[in-house]
Amino acid sequence: MRRMSLEDATVLAEAVLNRQGFSQEQTRALSQTVIAGQRDECHSHGLYRLLNCVSTLAAGKVVPDAVPEVHDQAPGIVRVDAKGGFSQLAFEAGLPKLAAKARNQGIAALAINHCVHFSALWIEIEAITDLGLVGLACNPTHACVAPAGGSQPLLGTNPLAFGWPRPDGQSPFIFDFATSAVARGEIELHRRENKPIPEGWGLDRAGQPSQDPAEVLEGAMLPFGGHKGSALGTMIELIAGPLIGDLTSAESLAHDDKAGASPYHGELILAMDPARFLGGSAAHYMAKAETLFSSISEQGARLPSQRRYEARERTRQEGIAIPEALYQELVQLT
Amino acid sequence: MRRMSLEDATVLAEAVLNRQGFSQEQTRALSQTVIAGQRDECHSHGLYRLLNCVSTLAAGKVVPDAVPEVHDQAPGIVRVDAKGGFSQLAFEAGLPKLAAKARNQGIAALAINHCVHFSALWIEIEAITDLGLVGLACNPTHACVAPAGGSQPLLGTNPLAFGWPRPDGQSPFIFDFATSAVARGEIELHRRENKPIPEGWGLDRAGQPSQDPAEVLEGAMLPFGGHKGSALGTMIELIAGPLIGDLTSAESLAHDDKAGASPYHGELILAMDPARFLGGSAAHYMAKAETLFSSISEQGARLPSQRRYEARERTRQEGIAIPEALYQELVQLT
Repeated sequence: MRRMSLEDATVLAEAVLNRQGFSQEQTRALSQTVIAGQRDECHSHGLYRLLNCVSTLAAGKVVPDAVPEVHDQAPGIVRVDAKGGFSQLAFEAGLPKLAAKARNQGIAALAINHCVHFSALWIEIEAITDLGLVGLACNPTHACVAPAGGSQPLLGTNPLAFGWPRPDGQSPFIFDFATSAVARGEIELHRRENKPIPEGWGLDRAGQPSQDPAEVLEGAMLPFGGHKGSALGTMIELIAGPLIGDLTSAESLAHDDKAGASPYHGELILAMDPARFLGGSAAHYMAKAETLFSSISEQGARLPSQRRYEARERTRQEGIAIPEALYQELVQLT
Repeated sequence: MRRMSLEDATVLAEAVLNRQGFSQEQTRALSQTVIAGQRDECHSHGLYRLLNCVSTLAAGKVVPDAVPEVHDQAPGIVRVDAKGGFSQLAFEAGLPKLAAKARNQGIAALAINHCVHFSALWIEIEAITDLGLVGLACNPTHACVAPAGGSQPLLGTNPLAFGWPRPDGQSPFIFDFATSAVARGEIELHRRENKPIPEGWGLDRAGQPSQDPAEVLEGAMLPFGGHKGSALGTMIELIAGPLIGDLTSAESLAHDDKAGASPYHGELILAMDPARFLGGSAAHYMAKAETLFSSISEQGARLPSQRRYEARERTRQEGIAIPEALYQELVQLT
């Protein structure tokens, strides 16, 4: 493993992205995202993802110097056209207006269109909770999940993320999960290691349950939680697809045309302002949320993101570590 | 079984509620709800629920003549104080303002406070899709579900419902599910029939997995879909509890004080207007949602609510049927 400071990792990430042709602004936003992933030890969303950024660019599936355009769609809606760039800069561009609208209206939506997507949603959600707002985000991906009772890939792994701000500098309550039974990478890992996957993860091409990872990757993954997870995944297709005038996971996959690039689609983000919902009693009710969190922790259950926050603390003290091979691969891209 | 027309069933429901002391307006709203449940053959939310309305009133846990108060909280938020009555009339009172706000702002929230709750959320969601809007609703219940990894009841069965309007008079896409592994009534049914429950439904009082329905009813139910369902259930506690200045499921259970009445708490409902999100291209993108629905149906998967719509059609032709014993019990309450 190669150890380095977050600062050195940032320099490396920026050097790769710049050298490969991303504009300065795109480079900064992308680099911040992969560094945050690496810092929290979400390795698949860390420096490793730079390889994916680069291959998506090489496939001609992302605009490396896109300048997002912000539109004031309605009193409660801000729309950002990412212009074919990665989602990060578009989110950054829309966040101030989303926050202002949420503080004024109580609730507001940010619709990002025409973006290429690879990052975990918790990063965006944490930017919202940092402003004292409640956040919810979701997006389609590429069609690879069969609806419950079906046999063919139609839905994406469609992540859903939620965040709640906490007082006194405490890390926010944030969850971020795929609506598929597992991440696609988990099945790929089983294939590489030649291990069968558990029941309930996927179907073969004929739509039959299979525990062979290669067959499932050719067939369809399954949603988490049966028909309930399937319903949620469908909801995400609708509200982060047609509702915001953008692609479904099936359309995103068709757009990819076997390039194997990151999904191209839209993203829906909601923000709600507790101060606007609660007025003078906001502190009183936010304290009740803290009671709920204590009741979860005290019975030995973990709050979501706990592992990430522990990793973040570790990174603060020890820096990060990535495989030497990955390090060398990145250096060659600079 | 006793067969009757929907009209006769309505007369019976209204007679029971009126005779037991509900005001005319409360009676009308409650009766509409149980009749809609019966019509769609959701028997536990049909005429059977009248017994629950009556016992909740007898326990002094609902105000039978409450007159909801509507407050314009913010440009994007309408708040309705149900004044301790059942939720239905409060929802009715708030709906026009919610719809007007959604059409103007693009997205709006309806927060119902201080309501007693028993009905399925799809009824409210369908009222929203009938207006051409996208709807989302959720509420806490009574604490009976342990968070994933925990051992004690803390979360409610916390339902989540979503609806999407469809063109040409087609029934809307609506789902409505509990974030617990199953409904509590399902476990009670197993206890009555002396049958073990499947793994994954619940824990005994010591927090150990149990397949004994009686032990689980004394212990804790489990969320659906492991930590993902648990995270969703927690989100619902937060956004339909503290965020709107109302009770969590644990607080609702404490308020009940062993009376066994329906939960007392708040409810959060969101509405989004496709026309405001999409402007002139609304029809184009709503057609893409139809393509998604076709792709689900064509591979043999069912759209949620399909069974209800089929039952509704059956009722239209044949009327409803309830057990003779239930009929007699209801007649005695008139």
